[in-house]
Amino acid sequence: MPSLMVFNSISLDGYFTGANGDLSWAHAADPNDQEWNDFVAGNAQGGGALVFGRLTYEMMVAYWPTPEAAKAMPKVAEGMNKAQKIVFSRTLNATPWQNTKIEKGDPVAEIRRLKAGSGPNMVILGSGSIVSQLTQARLIDAYQCVVVPVVLGQGRTMFDGVRDRLRLKRTSERAFKNGNVLVAYESPRLSTSEPSGGSA
Amino acid sequence: MPSLMVFNSISLDGYFTGANGDLSWAHAADPNDQEWNDFVAGNAQGGGALVFGRLTYEMMVAYWPTPEAAKAMPKVAEGMNKAQKIVFSRTLNATPWQNTKIEKGDPVAEIRRLKAGSGPNMVILGSGSIVSQLTQARLIDAYQCVVVPVVLGQGRTMFDGVRDRLRLKRTSERAFKNGNVLVAYESPRLSTSEPSGGSA
Repeated sequence: MPSLMVFNSISLDGYFTGANGDLSWAHAADPNDQEWNDFVAGNAQGGGALVFGRLTYEMMVAYWPTPEAAKAMPKVAEGMNKAQKIVFSRTLNATPWQNTKIEKGDPVAEIRRLKAGSGPNMVILGSGSIVSQLTQARLIDAYQCVVVPVVLGQGRTMFDGVRDRLRLKRTSERAFKNGNVLVAYESPRLSTSEPSGGSA
Repeated sequence: MPSLMVFNSISLDGYFTGANGDLSWAHAADPNDQEWNDFVAGNAQGGGALVFGRLTYEMMVAYWPTPEAAKAMPKVAEGMNKAQKIVFSRTLNATPWQNTKIEKGDPVAEIRRLKAGSGPNMVILGSGSIVSQLTQARLIDAYQCVVVPVVLGQGRTMFDGVRDRLRLKRTSERAFKNGNVLVAYESPRLSTSEPSGGSA
């Protein structure tokens, strides 16, 4: 069964987006950290389907298919353009971005259906309202958070609206020279039946 | 000159306190992680002065001087009780907790004065409104954040009200078996004059 992961950068005050949707802070780390650049490029070749809310999708489509993106980050742009994409939106009717499926249904019901099928693994980028709804429904198997060394003061968390506290299991962490720290977590209720006494 | 550090646990959504001041989540990690327990006990022997806002102070004073605290966490309780304490409050007039100075002045002005003096290093615990004011005034030299593997859904960040984005320098990170990840940061403007081209 396909798994569903979230991959997002967060500020030290927990925001995945600053005021007015600002994401510039997430890319302000030293651009010469080769290990970081390789990590980002590797992620873009992941092969899974990408899942978006409309706001994040519209930011992505405004950048990744452009010649600027192909020049600045060729591998990431190629990966983003080639990947299967699902965008949840009741208002979007068409999109110029290849390999996109516009999904007008309820994200919780649709993701539940996809997770019961035999499609590819899925990764959510950005898309706070989608993350929040699917977290509340306990449909997300793993969270990868890049903690960026910045304080924003205001912004939105990707967990706004989550009503029930969720305790996660940390599975790995990795510090980059640019100051970013990647921390990976698994949800306690995986689709695979995990013995409750499993080791840390 | 004395340094000023913040030490706080934060949830994955960036909150140092949950709804209604709830802190129970910060202590929900496996109590049998000896490395973590040693780390907490070691911190309590740090020797610096503790700095609080009134809300955090009142929670602390309700617990640490009690026999329950002495029984449950003897080393931490001893450290907390022995330490010099400063609480910022315009309304508090007296306190039963030993070694406490009630400070009625403006936290920014008072901390600036203390940092220019020859007193002990200072550590802020909890106290979001104090952290926020002193962060905005760029008076905090270092932040140690324990990222707890929990999503709260609602709460307060310790940076509410910070108006100017602050980029920090990560200095270390440490993962504990209980799922907590300690990440330490330095402020770019240290009181000591650091060469701007210093290594990571």
